[in-house]
Amino acid sequence: MVFAQLHWAMSMAGNLSFHETKQTWFPRMEKFVRKISTFCASFLKSWYLIGREDPRRVVHAVKVGVALTLVSFLYIFQPLFEGLGKNAMWAVMTVVVVLEFTAGATLCKGLNRGFGTLCAGSLAFLIEVVAEKSGKTFRGFFVGASVFTIGFGCTYVRFHSKIKRNYDYGVLVFLLTFNLISVSSFREENVVPLARDRLCTIAIGCGICLFMSLIVFPNWSGEDLHSYTVRKLEGLATSIEACVSIYFHDEDKDGNIVDVKATKEVISNGYRLVLDSKSSDESLALFASWEPRHSRHCYKYPWQQYVKLGTVLRHFGYTAVSLHGCLESEIQTTPSVRALFRGPCIQVANEVSKVLLDLASSLRTHRRCSPDVLSDHLHQALHDLNSAIRSQPRLFLNSKKNRSAAKHATNNNLMVALPSAKTDVAALVEKRNNNINGNTNNSNKVKAQPVLRPTLSKIAMLSLEFSEALPFAAFAALLVEMAARLELVIEEVEELARQASFKEYEEEDLVSIEVRRNETKENVKSRELYSPQLNPSVD
Amino acid sequence: MVFAQLHWAMSMAGNLSFHETKQTWFPRMEKFVRKISTFCASFLKSWYLIGREDPRRVVHAVKVGVALTLVSFLYIFQPLFEGLGKNAMWAVMTVVVVLEFTAGATLCKGLNRGFGTLCAGSLAFLIEVVAEKSGKTFRGFFVGASVFTIGFGCTYVRFHSKIKRNYDYGVLVFLLTFNLISVSSFREENVVPLARDRLCTIAIGCGICLFMSLIVFPNWSGEDLHSYTVRKLEGLATSIEACVSIYFHDEDKDGNIVDVKATKEVISNGYRLVLDSKSSDESLALFASWEPRHSRHCYKYPWQQYVKLGTVLRHFGYTAVSLHGCLESEIQTTPSVRALFRGPCIQVANEVSKVLLDLASSLRTHRRCSPDVLSDHLHQALHDLNSAIRSQPRLFLNSKKNRSAAKHATNNNLMVALPSAKTDVAALVEKRNNNINGNTNNSNKVKAQPVLRPTLSKIAMLSLEFSEALPFAAFAALLVEMAARLELVIEEVEELARQASFKEYEEEDLVSIEVRRNETKENVKSRELYSPQLNPSVD
Repeated sequence: MVFAQLHWAMSMAGNLSFHETKQTWFPRMEKFVRKISTFCASFLKSWYLIGREDPRRVVHAVKVGVALTLVSFLYIFQPLFEGLGKNAMWAVMTVVVVLEFTAGATLCKGLNRGFGTLCAGSLAFLIEVVAEKSGKTFRGFFVGASVFTIGFGCTYVRFHSKIKRNYDYGVLVFLLTFNLISVSSFREENVVPLARDRLCTIAIGCGICLFMSLIVFPNWSGEDLHSYTVRKLEGLATSIEACVSIYFHDEDKDGNIVDVKATKEVISNGYRLVLDSKSSDESLALFASWEPRHSRHCYKYPWQQYVKLGTVLRHFGYTAVSLHGCLESEIQTTPSVRALFRGPCIQVANEVSKVLLDLASSLRTHRRCSPDVLSDHLHQALHDLNSAIRSQPRLFLNSKKNRSAAKHATNNNLMVALPSAKTDVAALVEKRNNNINGNTNNSNKVKAQPVLRPTLSKIAMLSLEFSEALPFAAFAALLVEMAARLELVIEEVEELARQASFKEYEEEDLVSIEVRRNETKENVKSRELYSPQLNPSVD
Repeated sequence: MVFAQLHWAMSMAGNLSFHETKQTWFPRMEKFVRKISTFCASFLKSWYLIGREDPRRVVHAVKVGVALTLVSFLYIFQPLFEGLGKNAMWAVMTVVVVLEFTAGATLCKGLNRGFGTLCAGSLAFLIEVVAEKSGKTFRGFFVGASVFTIGFGCTYVRFHSKIKRNYDYGVLVFLLTFNLISVSSFREENVVPLARDRLCTIAIGCGICLFMSLIVFPNWSGEDLHSYTVRKLEGLATSIEACVSIYFHDEDKDGNIVDVKATKEVISNGYRLVLDSKSSDESLALFASWEPRHSRHCYKYPWQQYVKLGTVLRHFGYTAVSLHGCLESEIQTTPSVRALFRGPCIQVANEVSKVLLDLASSLRTHRRCSPDVLSDHLHQALHDLNSAIRSQPRLFLNSKKNRSAAKHATNNNLMVALPSAKTDVAALVEKRNNNINGNTNNSNKVKAQPVLRPTLSKIAMLSLEFSEALPFAAFAALLVEMAARLELVIEEVEELARQASFKEYEEEDLVSIEVRRNETKENVKSRELYSPQLNPSVD
């Protein structure tokens, strides 16, 4: 790019006079310099953001730098170097490979490395003892055979899912160390001092790593897992609220312009955190299980329960995705039909998200959640939704009649049609007459038609007129399904609280929880976006 | 366990006579031996299964063993050892660390290692040149400072998501090598021969790894990704078919006993492959992009398109999960109501799964899929479902009336009620009379009640009588949603076919595809399980 521009400028300079060159050259240079500076600024900004997103990253990088400098003193200071010699290299290697972001990961890798080295050393020593008495040729054959066997065995063992998950690194180090020792012992007469020095330097390296990760500004995988789970619960709550508020969002009626795109962003961000959480959940739980921090209470902290809760949340999240899918669906219920069920649906969603937020704050404060976390409110909201649905017997009639019926209902301040068959007939006749007498509000009619996105080109869905109730029924059923799945979430959270011996629930906690909830960053953000929709207004 | 049994036996022996001891001892010993042998057998079987599941694992383990033995010859054979000396260790280390299961992974790691080592060597050499002229103390300080700076920088850089994904190992090796060289050069006068020998042995190690992974029975990540994608498509097809067949499974009517548990297993296995595929998709695509195999056609093979297709399939999979959720839901539509829509629903599901299977076979054979892959059949099936739903105007009436109406409809061979309001009234009056005159078929009535699972203890859902149409409407809406999302899948597959220059579609392919489809193992298995349900029988 730079070269091309320079080349162009130079070739132009040959043909044009100095004045002309100056005229075209300088603006181009200016533009180029501006581009370069913009690129540099965005580059620096992206690196700055990585640190600002999680300042512990900067701290960790400093820690690694310090640990490496400490370990390099083994070479730099004469007295230390004389003791260890070139084996100090192994300390450097250990620090580079073992020191990880969280204490649990460092411990896991360090212990795997230590144990793998010890096992490999012992086995190599054993083989050495057996092979010692034989001749050089046989010994070479013996070493070759053992290298092949151990290489085959270790590689095969690493395919076992359980071993791969927990001890993969240990097996790798075992294989590495065994090969290094058994092969180099072939040329070394006395292998014991070598092995001792190497173990000693590895121990020094491990010691520095453990000091750095356990004592100096430690990051705990367990804490990460805990706060990650809390954030997942809050994300789901936000997502559901936003979803329902968008679904029943009616710009003209409310007079509030909701930033639909931003709210959709909030929805998908809310559940995305949950959907792809499997591997991070599992690795965090694995590392957390190596951390000594919670064992001082003499019980094993139930990290696996977090994984279980994660699974349940993931399944809850799939329902949230389907709910979001209802917004994006090709076939949509008209706003007028939706408006009939606005109140109860928003109520159910609010109650579900309230329960999720309660669970989140119960987790955050390490207190058991209130015994009536599944309050009567949710039950009442479901009841209201139930009666709202049952009071609309004509929703499966064909869309034309239905639309006018719905409009009528809306016009009459949601005076829902009586469910008796007689009034149904009367209403229908009335509507039919209205239709024949002339469509006075054509603009409304156009707006109320089923919204079909242009993407669906091949399946000529336009020709299908599914009953308008169908998409709404799916939405409502998913909400109800969510309320039902909520209980599984509550069960897992309660099981977690029991296993982790959370503090008992106290009445006065409620106030502090409420205050904290409003402070939560995500909620504040999302509430700003769609707060006008949160209060169900049936009128 | 063993010790406890032995201890028990020995303590018993002290109290009992020899005869009594013999009587209790031998059966226990026998039991114990049987237990041990059972354990051993299951242990061996689990290891055998790992190999049988994917025989390439055994081959890979043998390859690692052979590579390690080859590399150990550098030590064992005198002439080779004289050339390289103890630096041969680095070749062993390289083989252990770099040789991975697939060619792409090996290349990725090998090139990362090679490039990292080269960069680190150059930088260390540069710093060496600068520091050379200064005194020992200043030099020590200088080395320490550079170790800290590089340590900090590399660790911070590794937090960048793009670098973490692609070059994490390279940065780690860079850090490691830089430290080893710059620190050890502090004590070494002439570092150039050392670096040369080390590079040489690393090159030998890399060479052996590349030979083993590219030439000897190579496993290609690209092929894995390809067949994984095919299996995902087939899994989804199987899952949807099984889901619908279970939903409309009516034991008494069909006279076929379907193994419900096994079919549910099939459903969740089908979509589970898709749900958690994000990380494996991404890593396979990354490794595949390193593989040279497909570049001989002078175009870059579109591995990232597989990742995109994977994302779309995952979203399709979420709908499949929700569809499965309808089976497991607390509130169920009665079988009699479901039966009304059995034919069209099964038809839609069959068409969707047919399209998925067509896409799968198009991928497998590297041929473009038929231009009319979205055939009129699916359109027709959607139409039928549409008319079936619109012909049931009373489904949102309260459940009692509805149930009898449905039963009536079933009795009359699905002579669906006319949608006019008048016949509605007549039908209702008739049904009401029937209800008053006596419930002649009580047993049927009990069976037809909404199925509520016992788990929902707290939300007293039993008291809610959601319109029975609601759960079914959700099921139908999800099916329609699926048909709509199918187009996104087709789009991505067609984009893939275009980018990867698949062969043009030919009419005669159809036969071979059909034959192959029947040969697919998964399909054969799943078809065995629920084949009786696959033919929609509306009568």
